[in-house]
Amino acid sequence: MKLTEYLFHRIRELGVDCTFGIPGDFVLPVYAVQEAVGMPTVVCAHEPGVGFAADGYARFRGLGVAIVTYGPGALNAINPIACAYAEQSPVLVVSGGPEVALRRPDLNLHHVVKDYESQLRILREVTVDAAILADPASAPEAIDRVLRNVVGSKRPGYLEIPRDRVAVEVADPAGPLIVPPDPGSSEAIAGAIDEAVGEMVGMLRSASRPALYVGVGIRRHGLTGAVVRLAERLGVPVVTDLLGKAAFPESHPQFAGVYLGALGDPGVRALLDESDCVLGIGVVATDLGTGFWTQRIHPTARVMIDANAVQVRYHRYDGLPIAEVVAALLDRVPAERPAQVFTAVRSSGSDASADPARPGALRPGEVIEVLRGLDQSRYSFVADVGDSWFIGLELRADVFLAAGFYASMGFAVPAALGAGMAEPSRRPFVLVGDGAFQMTGTELATHVDQGLRPIILLLNNSGYGMLEAIDHPRTYYERRTWDYPAMARALGAGAERVGTSAELTAALARAEAAEGAYLIEVITARDDLSPIMARIRTHVHTAFRIQTAG
Amino acid sequence: MKLTEYLFHRIRELGVDCTFGIPGDFVLPVYAVQEAVGMPTVVCAHEPGVGFAADGYARFRGLGVAIVTYGPGALNAINPIACAYAEQSPVLVVSGGPEVALRRPDLNLHHVVKDYESQLRILREVTVDAAILADPASAPEAIDRVLRNVVGSKRPGYLEIPRDRVAVEVADPAGPLIVPPDPGSSEAIAGAIDEAVGEMVGMLRSASRPALYVGVGIRRHGLTGAVVRLAERLGVPVVTDLLGKAAFPESHPQFAGVYLGALGDPGVRALLDESDCVLGIGVVATDLGTGFWTQRIHPTARVMIDANAVQVRYHRYDGLPIAEVVAALLDRVPAERPAQVFTAVRSSGSDASADPARPGALRPGEVIEVLRGLDQSRYSFVADVGDSWFIGLELRADVFLAAGFYASMGFAVPAALGAGMAEPSRRPFVLVGDGAFQMTGTELATHVDQGLRPIILLLNNSGYGMLEAIDHPRTYYERRTWDYPAMARALGAGAERVGTSAELTAALARAEAAEGAYLIEVITARDDLSPIMARIRTHVHTAFRIQTAG
Repeated sequence: MKLTEYLFHRIRELGVDCTFGIPGDFVLPVYAVQEAVGMPTVVCAHEPGVGFAADGYARFRGLGVAIVTYGPGALNAINPIACAYAEQSPVLVVSGGPEVALRRPDLNLHHVVKDYESQLRILREVTVDAAILADPASAPEAIDRVLRNVVGSKRPGYLEIPRDRVAVEVADPAGPLIVPPDPGSSEAIAGAIDEAVGEMVGMLRSASRPALYVGVGIRRHGLTGAVVRLAERLGVPVVTDLLGKAAFPESHPQFAGVYLGALGDPGVRALLDESDCVLGIGVVATDLGTGFWTQRIHPTARVMIDANAVQVRYHRYDGLPIAEVVAALLDRVPAERPAQVFTAVRSSGSDASADPARPGALRPGEVIEVLRGLDQSRYSFVADVGDSWFIGLELRADVFLAAGFYASMGFAVPAALGAGMAEPSRRPFVLVGDGAFQMTGTELATHVDQGLRPIILLLNNSGYGMLEAIDHPRTYYERRTWDYPAMARALGAGAERVGTSAELTAALARAEAAEGAYLIEVITARDDLSPIMARIRTHVHTAFRIQTAG
Repeated sequence: MKLTEYLFHRIRELGVDCTFGIPGDFVLPVYAVQEAVGMPTVVCAHEPGVGFAADGYARFRGLGVAIVTYGPGALNAINPIACAYAEQSPVLVVSGGPEVALRRPDLNLHHVVKDYESQLRILREVTVDAAILADPASAPEAIDRVLRNVVGSKRPGYLEIPRDRVAVEVADPAGPLIVPPDPGSSEAIAGAIDEAVGEMVGMLRSASRPALYVGVGIRRHGLTGAVVRLAERLGVPVVTDLLGKAAFPESHPQFAGVYLGALGDPGVRALLDESDCVLGIGVVATDLGTGFWTQRIHPTARVMIDANAVQVRYHRYDGLPIAEVVAALLDRVPAERPAQVFTAVRSSGSDASADPARPGALRPGEVIEVLRGLDQSRYSFVADVGDSWFIGLELRADVFLAAGFYASMGFAVPAALGAGMAEPSRRPFVLVGDGAFQMTGTELATHVDQGLRPIILLLNNSGYGMLEAIDHPRTYYERRTWDYPAMARALGAGAERVGTSAELTAALARAEAAEGAYLIEVITARDDLSPIMARIRTHVHTAFRIQTAG
């Protein structure tokens, strides 16, 4: 078996059925092997799109693969891989590389920066594990190790294949790849889980206002089903963190909303901050996700089950795998509280729509109102950074992707490509601002190439509205309006522009009926903000005044 | 003086009159200071464009500045900065950063990857010097040091300004920034220069077929004028290396062509490989630039003046600044050979145009023929990677930019933006393929924003033609054709599509008359190659067969 065949064998074993990339000379032999083994490749327009697409795919499938050339290919994808690292998305980056035989300092090979390990060192900063497969004897082990770490830790990894190592013979796989390595068999871990779960059950029993607080970790570790059962047995309200929106299905009657500390819905905030037992599972307490640290969950009311540890009040159990802790907890919680099923709080998000309409431009509240009329079960919602994200947060959705922690603009259109390839039963539904669309919007063409049928809702407020909101108007926040519908048609999609709620409703009906990709440009006013953005604005202008005053 | 005011004071002192960037929350206070000091900012669509635009500007002005936000901003620009490093282009990257006071591991700040120095470590791999300006007392010194190293070495540098350091008071500048530090005053260096130059003069005197071989270094070190005078006194043919195309003005009668070893023009090759004295100045012997190491310049006929060293035959002088060596040589070469003025060899590039035309598609030779009819003195030519580059190599041009070593696709449209801002007296003239245009072509909108009038020649062969040429047809080299003229119009430019020489000639006349940006899509056939690309194809298919066969 060739080294690269071995790699594709493992990738396929892990459930991947296509990769994302752009060919380039150093990686051509890898593409040739990929073609020979029959694994389709989705060729994107630009490598930032490759990275986000692989990330979007990974969030559904547990592994996404980006295959890029050396230098420009890999380095153009650093930002989306950094995003995947921050947001615990398991993306494997495979890069071609110069021949081992040519790695001499005097040869001045194109695509090389300082030396032949510069790229490896850069990738190490954004991955959990990285290797150059120079040695055929150890290559299978290195491939297995990196994949195991990627899939186990839910973080990106990096493999570089020198051009003269692509087709070298390596040993066949000894057996299936076991990921993650199971550390849960020891007696000490079993004892610790027993003790920790005992504490949790005790706290839940004596609590009068218990709540579940779940994060992206339950999605990454495949625990959504178990957590739904747990929630139903407990009969408690379920709140997600910002990065974990839709990790718990939002169509579930116990789902209460997304927690954002003082920046979020007050009713949702009260569910946690006034609870006497908050059971957290897979939560990532980010700056924005805690409402800039305005979270007030009481430490004595707090249990946090993380990927490999459990925090109970002020003490900590290390080395406990999240899946086993959740399984043990589920075993110990019989269906005790079926009568107490919680009815979700009503989000205040729609308040803004009470404002009078403005001629030719929609208010965020109006957009939210129209979108709430959609049958969300048909879509994978993908939001970019900006008010499009905060508008998206007001929707109930069972599938919702965003760069919810790393907050990179340009995420949505390419991530939706990955979502569409990974989950063909749901149409990608993209919420994106004009600033972010200008970055990576041309990947709409790649959706068209693949026969996907995304609906792109481009919220055009002619500027970097989020920046202006946290600062004040400045010329460099202006973005000249491109003719977005014409551009979308140039890329092969249907498109139109709307300026009223009624037009948006009608356009969405046409988009739903469209046989291909469809872009709707929604004209919005830059001084009109979603409820969350308005709260962020107020918060930043008081708490962080010094930072934006220059 | 505020820290950031100090920085802009230095940047302006070095001749920079605008910067390139995209605002983002961590860098907003830097933008506010920039606005206050009256330095314009060119806001691009996406950070890959920011980096290439700053690079294009730096190639004219000796310094270009990219100002980006933390995380997504800086990491999206890694590839163009790597390109600038490889190609000796002095670009300063200024990034905002989290407050020093907030750099705690428990705060989970957005835009942060592994830790608060991850970004610094990544940037170190693509810059000559890098610093986080956390300490107000040492910040002026750090700014001066990084700028001196950038401008002196012609490599990128990195400065990160934590949000709570933007407006701290620092000491005023002690005096003007001296760059580069002048190491040439010592007696030892003067003696070494005298000895080295004596050897050169002796070799030149006794040579029967001397030639000058100049590279990008003469442009970077501001030596073009001196080298023109040297060439005129010597009366010898002048050949440039690949990266250094147009470092020597190609309208000069002694300019003979671009050397590419066995891959280039045979007449040009003979000028160096059959010479008994090749005087090289600022040459970078890259893989492609040496025709994949088919260069046969005889070592005993060779003098190479590099940035800080001189190689004469088999021995070497270290630590000699290129500017002083060239000045000393010019002093010692009186106008000896005025009668022997060389008449440039005729490039064979136009041979391809002898082939019969194909219906609806231009041959590369036809494109070359038409472009040779332009008045090159009106344009800054900027070529992207692919056959557009090799077509560009066939033109005589006094200003020609390309990613001639690092070879990153996506260079041309944004680099032309930098060129247009740096040298307003020449219209940017972009040669770009469809694959590269799909990466960064939307920066055409930024040209429009700035009132520039680029002519974009988009050579559309519906695929990654260069990759197909060195391999063979495969589905993943196909690029579906976007409606490029419609897209250009959507971005605010004029546009049309042509399929014959006559149409191209007429379209160029309309482009020249246009008051704004203008895109011409030129339909070409993918199996038709420029003369250089055809030679590369032949070479790769014989020498590197194993690499593309997979």
